[in-house]
Amino acid sequence: MVAKTLTLAELSAMVGGELNGDPQITIHGLADLASAKKGEIAFMVKEAHIDILKKSHGSAFIVPQQLVYDEKPLIKVADPYLAAARVQQFYQAKPFRAAGINPKSDIGNNCQIPEEISIGPFVAIGDRVRLGKRVILHPGVIIGNDTVIGDDCILYPNVTVYHSCCIGSRVIIHSGTVIGSDGFGFATDEHGEHVKWLHIGTVQIDDDVEIGANVTIDRGTFGKTHIMQGTKMDNLVQIGHNVKIGKNTLVVAQVAIGGSASLGNNVVLGGQVAIKGHIHLGDGVMVAAKSGVHANVPKGTIVSGIPAIPHRDWLRASTIYAKLPKLYAEMLDMRKKMEKLYAKLFPDEGQG
Amino acid sequence: MVAKTLTLAELSAMVGGELNGDPQITIHGLADLASAKKGEIAFMVKEAHIDILKKSHGSAFIVPQQLVYDEKPLIKVADPYLAAARVQQFYQAKPFRAAGINPKSDIGNNCQIPEEISIGPFVAIGDRVRLGKRVILHPGVIIGNDTVIGDDCILYPNVTVYHSCCIGSRVIIHSGTVIGSDGFGFATDEHGEHVKWLHIGTVQIDDDVEIGANVTIDRGTFGKTHIMQGTKMDNLVQIGHNVKIGKNTLVVAQVAIGGSASLGNNVVLGGQVAIKGHIHLGDGVMVAAKSGVHANVPKGTIVSGIPAIPHRDWLRASTIYAKLPKLYAEMLDMRKKMEKLYAKLFPDEGQG
Amino acid sequence: MVAKTLTLAELSAMVGGELNGDPQITIHGLADLASAKKGEIAFMVKEAHIDILKKSHGSAFIVPQQLVYDEKPLIKVADPYLAAARVQQFYQAKPFRAAGINPKSDIGNNCQIPEEISIGPFVAIGDRVRLGKRVILHPGVIIGNDTVIGDDCILYPNVTVYHSCCIGSRVIIHSGTVIGSDGFGFATDEHGEHVKWLHIGTVQIDDDVEIGANVTIDRGTFGKTHIMQGTKMDNLVQIGHNVKIGKNTLVVAQVAIGGSASLGNNVVLGGQVAIKGHIHLGDGVMVAAKSGVHANVPKGTIVSGIPAIPHRDWLRASTIYAKLPKLYAEMLDMRKKMEKLYAKLFPDEGQG
Repeated sequence: MVAKTLTLAELSAMVGGELNGDPQITIHGLADLASAKKGEIAFMVKEAHIDILKKSHGSAFIVPQQLVYDEKPLIKVADPYLAAARVQQFYQAKPFRAAGINPKSDIGNNCQIPEEISIGPFVAIGDRVRLGKRVILHPGVIIGNDTVIGDDCILYPNVTVYHSCCIGSRVIIHSGTVIGSDGFGFATDEHGEHVKWLHIGTVQIDDDVEIGANVTIDRGTFGKTHIMQGTKMDNLVQIGHNVKIGKNTLVVAQVAIGGSASLGNNVVLGGQVAIKGHIHLGDGVMVAAKSGVHANVPKGTIVSGIPAIPHRDWLRASTIYAKLPKLYAEMLDMRKKMEKLYAKLFPDEGQG
Repeated sequence: MVAKTLTLAELSAMVGGELNGDPQITIHGLADLASAKKGEIAFMVKEAHIDILKKSHGSAFIVPQQLVYDEKPLIKVADPYLAAARVQQFYQAKPFRAAGINPKSDIGNNCQIPEEISIGPFVAIGDRVRLGKRVILHPGVIIGNDTVIGDDCILYPNVTVYHSCCIGSRVIIHSGTVIGSDGFGFATDEHGEHVKWLHIGTVQIDDDVEIGANVTIDRGTFGKTHIMQGTKMDNLVQIGHNVKIGKNTLVVAQVAIGGSASLGNNVVLGGQVAIKGHIHLGDGVMVAAKSGVHANVPKGTIVSGIPAIPHRDWLRASTIYAKLPKLYAEMLDMRKKMEKLYAKLFPDEGQG
Repeated sequence: MVAKTLTLAELSAMVGGELNGDPQITIHGLADLASAKKGEIAFMVKEAHIDILKKSHGSAFIVPQQLVYDEKPLIKVADPYLAAARVQQFYQAKPFRAAGINPKSDIGNNCQIPEEISIGPFVAIGDRVRLGKRVILHPGVIIGNDTVIGDDCILYPNVTVYHSCCIGSRVIIHSGTVIGSDGFGFATDEHGEHVKWLHIGTVQIDDDVEIGANVTIDRGTFGKTHIMQGTKMDNLVQIGHNVKIGKNTLVVAQVAIGGSASLGNNVVLGGQVAIKGHIHLGDGVMVAAKSGVHANVPKGTIVSGIPAIPHRDWLRASTIYAKLPKLYAEMLDMRKKMEKLYAKLFPDEGQG
């Protein structure tokens, strides 16, 4: 692989930054402050790290706009983390190289598979499956009948997609993830036995979604479970049947979302959050890690706790929590004193 | 596939309902209220949804017994959700069709595999494995040596069952689930190093159990981990070594049950619940989502919280939680006043 | 398989115990108290189980040093659980038997694979992979390009290791686990869209680590995620990008550790714990099950709760929690009385 190279002027233009240094310096890669070497550009998110920057061997630096410092070549931007992510994409993005269909795979009948494709060994594809261009199916991926996958998707090893699911373009799914398993739906009879609901719905995943490893997304009972464009999910997340997740939402690791719950756009769920079934979280809602949300949350709200309450209230309450034993002891003490005062002032009323 | 068709009279008899409408209407499928079309029967669980029913295009409706309404053909039942699940099973259940043993699978020595079987590509079966009739092993399923699987089981893609496990009949296991991995058992030596307990126990799963996707069920250290008849588990559940789960228990997503814990029959564990090892939950116990249970729970009890307490107490306490800062401020205020009262009434006692 | 047999004298020497009984008794296996048979040695961890020991059919017993009892052959040791684990290892450890490379596997180019190896069917190995001696890759294991695995490792079915990871010797990885997936790193642009950070780091797992089933360990954004020697992880654990875990640490099921967090040696994380990104837990820290740790924890500390506080404080506070409604009611009652006292003593101040 030939290394890509850009001048500092070109990099600065790419990220819309303000260049402070020799525009002809050539850069062949991005690194973090500590490990950057000559020829690489590094990035500093917080001004507090300026001492690490000063010692860094990088040839240039992406830094916050307001930084006052001019001893090294800088590109000043509003959001160094964002700019660096884009620079990283430029240097690291790999062009698609079609490996074709591995002879050790198994392809069903009446599939539509374009020539620009990479299907690894031990991939099993059912009947009537349609794959987009430049799709990469790593070894051990299993795709059920009638499933459709758009262009430029990457499915890492051992991903399972059940039958009749619909996946958009540029979707990335990490290893071990399961799309389209049955929802947890049972009706309980008079003997306490559970009658299974056969799930005839499906899963739709829109463009630019990324899903972490060992995630589970259940299909709809009827209708569909729907993950909208640009949403990103971390590992080990559980999405129940008929859940709707809006655009550009972030779902951190080990979150569980109950059946038929719906989330707006740009929601952020912290790690290990649980969302009760059938409730709605508005656009831009943020839920702190480990919280349990059991009722609708209006747009733009930040909530925490089990059950979740406004984040500010939770912060204050959780601070008092550790003082509960002291609070309780003091209460008992005050009651004693109160009785003494009462006895003196209202001798006829007894202890009140 | 030829659509199945029943008259309303036949459907009503199937669910033991009271028919209100033309018994000769023919129905070829079940749908939900919103999406039902002509020729389909829909179901209404709550009377509050009557307006959706009125607008529905379904040809008939399964409704609660007590509903007062007679403008559309109805089947009245005690539990519409249960009746609908049964109707759905009638319409959607697919007859087993033996696909045989895919030549791209790998079968060990001395296995017992009946003719009525469907074994997909990239399925690996160890030695001395016994499979029941009409078992479906989807692509990528791995079965260890000496494992036994009963009749009519479905193992979805990429399920792993380790050696020497025993699975009953009509068991459904969703993708990515792991049965029979080693329990988390280590003895720590004088240097702080952990000596592994080699697990020689096994896992027994009884008839009619359903297990979700990416679940993990560890084998016994000695003896067995045992999941009894009719129990249903959601996705991403963790079952430790030597756990016993009774009949018809429901385990919602991301629950963790510690080693050697035991659950009775008809227990319900909400999502993300943790059960400490070696404790017992009696029949019919219900644990609210996200709770942590660290002590035995007597039968029929509902518990919540971390640590779990009776649900009613938890409901009340959690309501007060948000008011803790106010409670604390008021306490400080009262103490000041108390001191003032004391100073006046008992001037010789100081601040009390 | 020929059963291994030792005399009681030999077993006692193996575990450094004090023998109390006929040294010539021969023992061919270890069992628990309840199921032990003639010819087997059983172990008793707590003296409270002495009645089970008395009824046990085992031929000898590993017991705590201080036990006063002499009616059966005993080996007395400081830690019966540890001694029994070692005896179990002696009886159950199986010698490696090279099965070679299964013809139904797929091996990439320029790999280094020794002769003493067992590679099952449907194993896919990328290019330039190096495997140590006596490695066992069970069916369905997928190994990416340039990954290195040391001697005597066992990877159970359907494990995925991405490219460029480095795994030491004697590492055990259970089924469905994913090593080296991308970290959850995104930069959000001015439109609320998330730009992916391409992860160019890797994962290093040192010697003697054991990892449970369906675990996910993300690769570093830059640099590496690093699990050090002797650490043991339970099932369904999530390890974020660039996490460092010290030696001999125990991570119980469903724990989540946020990106760039670091743990010392001999840390213990209870089930379902969450550790915030970028914080540090010192050597020997213990975190109770279900806790959420959001700040550094000094070495040797025990913490609990959400957010985590010193364990003793949490124990006391959680006891008061259930009494909050009573506390609140009493507070309201005292306020009323206080007002009455005030009105009497300071009539001019109003309600205070």
